[in-house]
Amino acid sequence: MPGSRACISPNDRGFTHADGVYEIVRSYAGTLFRIPDHLARLKRSLAAVRIAVPDVDTFAETAAELLRRNRLDKKDATVYIQITRGIAERMRAPGPAIPTVYIETSPLIARRALCRGVSVITLPDIRWGRCDIKTIGLLPNALARMQATDKGVYEALFIRDGFVTEGTHTNVFGVKDGTVLTHPPDHHILPGITRTVLLELCRALGIPISESPIPEPELTRLDELFLTCTTAEVIPVLRVNDVAVADGKPGPITRRLQSAFRRLSRRA
Amino acid sequence: MPGSRACISPNDRGFTHADGVYEIVRSYAGTLFRIPDHLARLKRSLAAVRIAVPDVDTFAETAAELLRRNRLDKKDATVYIQITRGIAERMRAPGPAIPTVYIETSPLIARRALCRGVSVITLPDIRWGRCDIKTIGLLPNALARMQATDKGVYEALFIRDGFVTEGTHTNVFGVKDGTVLTHPPDHHILPGITRTVLLELCRALGIPISESPIPEPELTRLDELFLTCTTAEVIPVLRVNDVAVADGKPGPITRRLQSAFRRLSRRA
Repeated sequence: MPGSRACISPNDRGFTHADGVYEIVRSYAGTLFRIPDHLARLKRSLAAVRIAVPDVDTFAETAAELLRRNRLDKKDATVYIQITRGIAERMRAPGPAIPTVYIETSPLIARRALCRGVSVITLPDIRWGRCDIKTIGLLPNALARMQATDKGVYEALFIRDGFVTEGTHTNVFGVKDGTVLTHPPDHHILPGITRTVLLELCRALGIPISESPIPEPELTRLDELFLTCTTAEVIPVLRVNDVAVADGKPGPITRRLQSAFRRLSRRA
Repeated sequence: MPGSRACISPNDRGFTHADGVYEIVRSYAGTLFRIPDHLARLKRSLAAVRIAVPDVDTFAETAAELLRRNRLDKKDATVYIQITRGIAERMRAPGPAIPTVYIETSPLIARRALCRGVSVITLPDIRWGRCDIKTIGLLPNALARMQATDKGVYEALFIRDGFVTEGTHTNVFGVKDGTVLTHPPDHHILPGITRTVLLELCRALGIPISESPIPEPELTRLDELFLTCTTAEVIPVLRVNDVAVADGKPGPITRRLQSAFRRLSRRA
């Protein structure tokens, strides 16, 4: 249906309780990138929040159909998938409900400047203990991103117990002495699909990986620092809290991974 | 408008980002209980999440009008008020938007059995670090309440660093040697309106208060344990994780506060 006709009930648990999960899938010239990985993660998120949706695997076809109907099947686009528990009482633990499934496509608004590098700030990670579930409970991320915007920078990196976990909508990678470092997949970060692809590319290119968290004071002492996310791929970080990372320019491993990711995604 | 006609956009930030706050106000035979306190807290929540709504003070009249139109102005009812950032891009930090204000009244479904006492479980408090803001990001609370329901009990009490913070929708009070204990108002609990009223009643009745958190192992060694919330008022807790609190019956101070609360609210 036309977006303007789409209507959510004010009693939808997604509106009243952040009681839902979501995915954003990139499509490159009509090809959905890593959609099996996205749907597998969606199933894990649904299981974690106890929402039963039997037909998640059919969403790949639905997404492709929506791209066609919106004439986005030859263009770069994103597919947004959100599932909530559905319409139910405003009690903490509601009775059975029929889940709300919302799928929408949008043309990709390319922000090419991002691949040349961004600045970031750090903020305390006060989010809940299950950031591995991709829930719609994004207010802490939104508030942190607003603080980044206030400071005129692109992103805020969360610090928990002295270590970088992730950004408000990105995973974080460092490079030190030729090794790529990133937070291990645990309850404090989202296991990003782009993160997974990056680690696969490192292995393919023979770049050593260490899934160990980066201490905050090390951030600007790294040789390179970059972010990954579904829509913007690989983003060099040039400054942290107004201090340059190394020489303040995108590093060679970052550049190599950017190119490798571009090649992979465009032929996917 | 009729509830069935109310329609929220799927691009409302309340649906996509839990980007909103709420209040539930009790009305006793048409009189809104402590509505100035609820609206003051709503203003604090809005400021904390940076949503600007200038006319919060007019909501008292709107709520009263809604009670009249729904023929609830002589009955016990609840007024639900939710404000979100409004319709905006699905970016972490959106541009300016017109906030969505949703106000709904419902007849109160009295659960009289609650005042005779309930059982609870304890669970780790994995919620975010700003539980003092009454946001719609309630999924952690919903998941905890589901676990309580699984165990056949009424409520889950959250444990952070070994101490009880609050329940999924209640504040928690203990009684030991005649003193009423409850978690101090900080970032880890919601400053409940019923909690505030309870402390006022204690002062009026000459019951000593200590705003200090209760260690989890002390829960069943207390003389009395009770919960407070807007809709169910004062709820004795008789068992924690299947162990009786004291003799497993509502205690005398709990009973005294239940009666005092009832008298106060019915003549408000």
